[in-house]
Amino acid sequence: MDRIPILKMGQFLLVTIQVDLYDRLALNLENDLINMVSKTGARGVLIDISAVSIVDSFMGRILGNIASMSRIMDAETVVVGMQPAVAITLVELGLTLQGVYTALDVEKGMELLHDKIGTIEHPEDEEEEAPHDDID
Amino acid sequence: MDRIPILKMGQFLLVTIQVDLYDRLALNLENDLINMVSKTGARGVLIDISAVSIVDSFMGRILGNIASMSRIMDAETVVVGMQPAVAITLVELGLTLQGVYTALDVEKGMELLHDKIGTIEHPEDEEEEAPHDDID
Repeated sequence: MDRIPILKMGQFLLVTIQVDLYDRLALNLENDLINMVSKTGARGVLIDISAVSIVDSFMGRILGNIASMSRIMDAETVVVGMQPAVAITLVELGLTLQGVYTALDVEKGMELLHDKIGTIEHPEDEEEEAPHDDID
Repeated sequence: MDRIPILKMGQFLLVTIQVDLYDRLALNLENDLINMVSKTGARGVLIDISAVSIVDSFMGRILGNIASMSRIMDAETVVVGMQPAVAITLVELGLTLQGVYTALDVEKGMELLHDKIGTIEHPEDEEEEAPHDDID
């Protein structure tokens, strides 16, 4: 296999990484994703890494690259499903995935994307941390 | 890798098959899926096989098994993203994937599932092929 499938779901793209990302596969993924964002006008990219148990600096760089490229194309990137051990490794490696949003699972990632691109149903002034008492 | 990740999206589960399904992987997938259906109360299972370019009778049987098991658990199964060559091979092998619904992509598969489980927004009498001229 030299291509990771990219699934279009509404205005988001979903990628599930299940195999080790070697050079060509990673480059293909970057290319395919950017082309898909351009072709579909997607506003968000969800990358599920729940099947990834080993992470290295290459993987971290690829995720960062995808996020940077997507942002230029006006799409936000959310990495979801990270295993606790992977998070530990990333921090120990000094990789903080700058510019990449993370969420616990796909559903939470979609909520985050909806929030980011402002297509959430409730108006934006309904902030949970700032309840208004202006009922009079 | 000995497990294929299963993503929960609302009331559906999404599985992307990217690697060849050998025995243990397929059995694990069946087990994991049924457990997830039971745990989450999912009403539908979407299996994306857009990355599968070679199909054999084992793969056909696994898809059929998953559909049968899911139906017992009150969930419908839709296989999406089948490559044309795979469809040709399936027919040539005499495998017609009985009991398995198919759709062109994930979005169409989700529409089909919504239709099947009756959670579609528009009422069911709004059939496209039967336009009504009852404006009077």
